[in-house]
Amino acid sequence: MLSERARAAFRSALGTDRVFEDAATRALYASDETPHRVEPDAVLFPASHEEVAALARTAFEHRVALTPRGAGSGNVGGALPSPGSVVVSFECMRRVLEFDPANRLVVVEPGVVTEDIDRLARTQGLFYPPDPGSGAYCRIGGNLAMNAAGPRAVKYGVTRDFVLGLRAVTGSGEEIRTGCRTTKGVTGYDLTRLLVGSGGTLALITEATLKLLPAPEAVATLRVCYAGNRDALAAVSRVMRQAVTPCALEFMDRRAIDAIRPTGAADDLPGATQALLMVEADGAAADLPRQIAALEKALLGDGLLDMRSGFEPEVITRLWAARKSLSHAVMRIAPLKINEDVVVPVTSLPDFVDFLEHTAQAQRLPIVSFGHAGNGNLHVNLMVHPDDADEMVRARIALEAILLRVLALGGTLSGEHGIGTEKRRFVPQEIDPVTLDLMRAIKRQFDPHGLLNPGKLFPDP
Amino acid sequence: MLSERARAAFRSALGTDRVFEDAATRALYASDETPHRVEPDAVLFPASHEEVAALARTAFEHRVALTPRGAGSGNVGGALPSPGSVVVSFECMRRVLEFDPANRLVVVEPGVVTEDIDRLARTQGLFYPPDPGSGAYCRIGGNLAMNAAGPRAVKYGVTRDFVLGLRAVTGSGEEIRTGCRTTKGVTGYDLTRLLVGSGGTLALITEATLKLLPAPEAVATLRVCYAGNRDALAAVSRVMRQAVTPCALEFMDRRAIDAIRPTGAADDLPGATQALLMVEADGAAADLPRQIAALEKALLGDGLLDMRSGFEPEVITRLWAARKSLSHAVMRIAPLKINEDVVVPVTSLPDFVDFLEHTAQAQRLPIVSFGHAGNGNLHVNLMVHPDDADEMVRARIALEAILLRVLALGGTLSGEHGIGTEKRRFVPQEIDPVTLDLMRAIKRQFDPHGLLNPGKLFPDP
Repeated sequence: MLSERARAAFRSALGTDRVFEDAATRALYASDETPHRVEPDAVLFPASHEEVAALARTAFEHRVALTPRGAGSGNVGGALPSPGSVVVSFECMRRVLEFDPANRLVVVEPGVVTEDIDRLARTQGLFYPPDPGSGAYCRIGGNLAMNAAGPRAVKYGVTRDFVLGLRAVTGSGEEIRTGCRTTKGVTGYDLTRLLVGSGGTLALITEATLKLLPAPEAVATLRVCYAGNRDALAAVSRVMRQAVTPCALEFMDRRAIDAIRPTGAADDLPGATQALLMVEADGAAADLPRQIAALEKALLGDGLLDMRSGFEPEVITRLWAARKSLSHAVMRIAPLKINEDVVVPVTSLPDFVDFLEHTAQAQRLPIVSFGHAGNGNLHVNLMVHPDDADEMVRARIALEAILLRVLALGGTLSGEHGIGTEKRRFVPQEIDPVTLDLMRAIKRQFDPHGLLNPGKLFPDP
Repeated sequence: MLSERARAAFRSALGTDRVFEDAATRALYASDETPHRVEPDAVLFPASHEEVAALARTAFEHRVALTPRGAGSGNVGGALPSPGSVVVSFECMRRVLEFDPANRLVVVEPGVVTEDIDRLARTQGLFYPPDPGSGAYCRIGGNLAMNAAGPRAVKYGVTRDFVLGLRAVTGSGEEIRTGCRTTKGVTGYDLTRLLVGSGGTLALITEATLKLLPAPEAVATLRVCYAGNRDALAAVSRVMRQAVTPCALEFMDRRAIDAIRPTGAADDLPGATQALLMVEADGAAADLPRQIAALEKALLGDGLLDMRSGFEPEVITRLWAARKSLSHAVMRIAPLKINEDVVVPVTSLPDFVDFLEHTAQAQRLPIVSFGHAGNGNLHVNLMVHPDDADEMVRARIALEAILLRVLALGGTLSGEHGIGTEKRRFVPQEIDPVTLDLMRAIKRQFDPHGLLNPGKLFPDP
C-alpha cells in the first residue's frame, strides 16, 4: 500500500478527488486483455501535463512505481499493474490541443480515443491512418506506447510513422520535448521514435503531435477465397510483388473463418474455402477500377475459388466487423487464447503457416491464424483450457517452437502488440546481449530508479 | 599524430595497406562541403564489419577519436575531421549484401552510392525513394548518419522511413544489431531510428537493411511561374491542402532562377517571373492526367504567370539538373555561402520568405532561397565574401535573426543536412536543457569515451 507520506503527496499533486485507493477502483484497474490480474495500490487520474509532471516527481521522491494506462485494451500486459505500483490512467487527458489541417497535423493528449482522431481529421478531408482493431475505444497514448498498427499499415505504415513530436515526463519527473511540428527535422537525436513503442518504460507521454494525410476519396474491397492456406499466401506474395499496394491485405485461415460464421459474414463462401483474403484498395474514385484490376490479376492463381468485389456497403461493413471481432470470437473455441502477433517475411508465410498446422497437429491444439498478411504479420492464437495441465504443457512447447521458427525465418516476435509482460522472456532470443544491455542503459537515463512500468519489455536480468 | 602503439594496433587490425598517414591522403580527407579544413592524423579504409569492429576496439583501447566519412559531400561539417582524430572512410565497404525484391528489401554496406541502390531496385520494378541532391556520389552511410532526404520526401518520406534494421559498432567496439527485416516490428527499443540522424556520434553503421517500394510507372512534371514569392508559396499551401500529394514540390526564388540561367533552363520563362515551382506527380501512367489536373487546379491563383506540363524528357532532365546544380551554382554570386536548410510549417512559408527578403535588404546581403517547399524545407543561402569583415558581421546578425524566426514560427533548424559542426551552437535554442542532457547521457551509453565524431551535433557544454 501507499505510504502515508506518498498518499499525501499524490493528493497534494492531483487533488484528493483524483487519487483512488478504494477496493472497487483498484479491482477495476487490475487487468487488461491478458488473463492476469494484479491490483494496483492506487489509481491516479491526472488531467494535465503539469499534473503528470507533479505525480512523477512525487513518485520519484517516494520511490513509487507507476503503471501508465490508456484503455487497458492491450494484449501483452503492457497496462497490467506492476506489483506494488500505482496506475496512472490517462482517461481524463482527452483534449485535442490543436488541429491544423493546413499543416496536416493534430496535437492530442494521450487519452484521446484513436478513432476520434481519424474522425476529426476527416472533417477537413484528412485522415489518421493507423487503425488498430481496438480503435473504437483504445487511447492514442497506448497506441504510442506499443507502436500500434492495423490493416492499413501495409500501405500507410504504423503509429511511429505518424508521430512528429512528443511532450513527455521522465521517470525523474522532468519534462522533455522531442521532435518537431514539421514533416522533416534532424536536430538532435530522434527521441520521438525511441519513445514510441517503448511501452511506457522511458517516459509518460503527455502530448503528441501527429501527422495526417489527405483522406482517400473512395475504397473498394475484394473478398477472395482459396482452397488452402498456401494458395492464399502465395497470392499475398504476388500482390506485394506488383505496383498497386492495397490499403488492407488480410488473411484468415479455416478456423478463423469458422469463428466468424455466427456473424453471417461467411454464409456465402464456397464450401471448399479453406482460406480467405480481404483486399482493399483506396484512392481517387476514378483510379480505383485500375487498382482493383491490378490486384485481381495478382490474386488470380492456384486454388482460387471465388473473387468478388462491388459489395453493398453493408456487406463490407459486416465483413470488417467480423474481421475485427475475431480477436474475441476465437474465445468460443477454448476459454484461453495464447495470442502472438509474430511477423515473418511475406515470402515465408506459406511455409510458416504449414509449420503452424503441423505444430497444431503434433501438440493436439487448435491454432487459429489471421492477420495483416501484407506485412507478414500474423495473429497466431493457441486456444487452450487453462485447467488442463497437460494441454498447457503442450501449448508451451508449441509456443516456443513457433517463436523459434519465426526467428529462424528472419522474423520478429511482435509486429504491433508489443512485448509487455507476456513475451519478455523470449526477447533474448531475438535481441543479442550487447544490444539488450544498451537498451537497459538507455532506460536508466530516462528512469534512474526503474519506476516506469517495471517488469515490462525486458527479461529479468 | 598517432602514437606508435596505436599505429601498430590499427595496422594489425586492418593491414598496413589500409592505414594511411601520408600528407597527401591526410590533405585529401581534410574537408567536406564546408569551407573548413582539419587534417586527420590518419585515414583508415576498413573493408568489412569485422574490420570496423577491430578498428573501433583499437580506438577504444588507445583513446583515439574517429571521424566516420562517406563521400564527404555533407554541408554541415559532419565528416570534417574532429581535431586529432582518425578518419574512417567507408569507401571500400560498398557491397550489396542481399537484394530480396519479393520482400522489398536490400541489405547494403555503408559505402554504397545512394543512386546505385535506386538503380538496382528499379531492375526489379522497385525503387528507393530518398533522393538527396548529391545522390549520384554520396554514400548511403552518410545518408543514414544525417537522415538525408530530397525532393521525393514530400510524398515518400526521408531516409529514416526506409531503414528496417542496422548492424553497427559502438564507441567501445561492440557489435549491435537493431530493428528487423520486416515492415513491422516492436521488439525492444527503436535503436534503428535513434542511430539514423545521429551523425555518426553513437555508432559506426556497417550494414543497413533498407525498405523498397514499387517503382511508379510514370512521372509528369509541371513548371509554374509566379509574379512573386508569396504567390508561389500560397500555391504550395493550396497543393498540400488537397488530396494529390506530388512527389516533388520545389521552390526557387528570383536569385535562384538567376543562378540557373547559365544552364539555359530558365530561357523561356516569362520576363516577370519572380518565383518558380517545379511540381511532379508519379504513379500509374493512366492515373497521371487526373493527378496533374488536380495539381493544376491547386496551383492556379494570384500571380500565376505560366503553367506548363508535357515537356520533352530532355527539358525535364535539364530542369532537374539545373535544380540540383543550384547548391553549387549560387557560388557565382559570392565566394562563400552560409547554407541553412531550415524548416517552417508550410503555411508560414510566405511570411518566412518575406522575412528573408527584409533581412537581405537590412543586412545588404544576397540571400538565395530554394528547396523542398512541400515539406516547408528551404535552403537559405547567405552569400558572402569571407575577406569582408563587415559583411561577415552582418551575415552573422542575419543568420541569428533567421534561425530565431524559424523557431518562433514553430520550425526546426535542419530538415535534412543535419547539425554537424556548423549549427551546433544554435541547438540550445531549439532543444531544452533537460532533453539535451538526456541526449548526451544516451551518447555516453553508446560511446563512453566520446570517441565517435566528437565536437559534432551537440554544443559545447
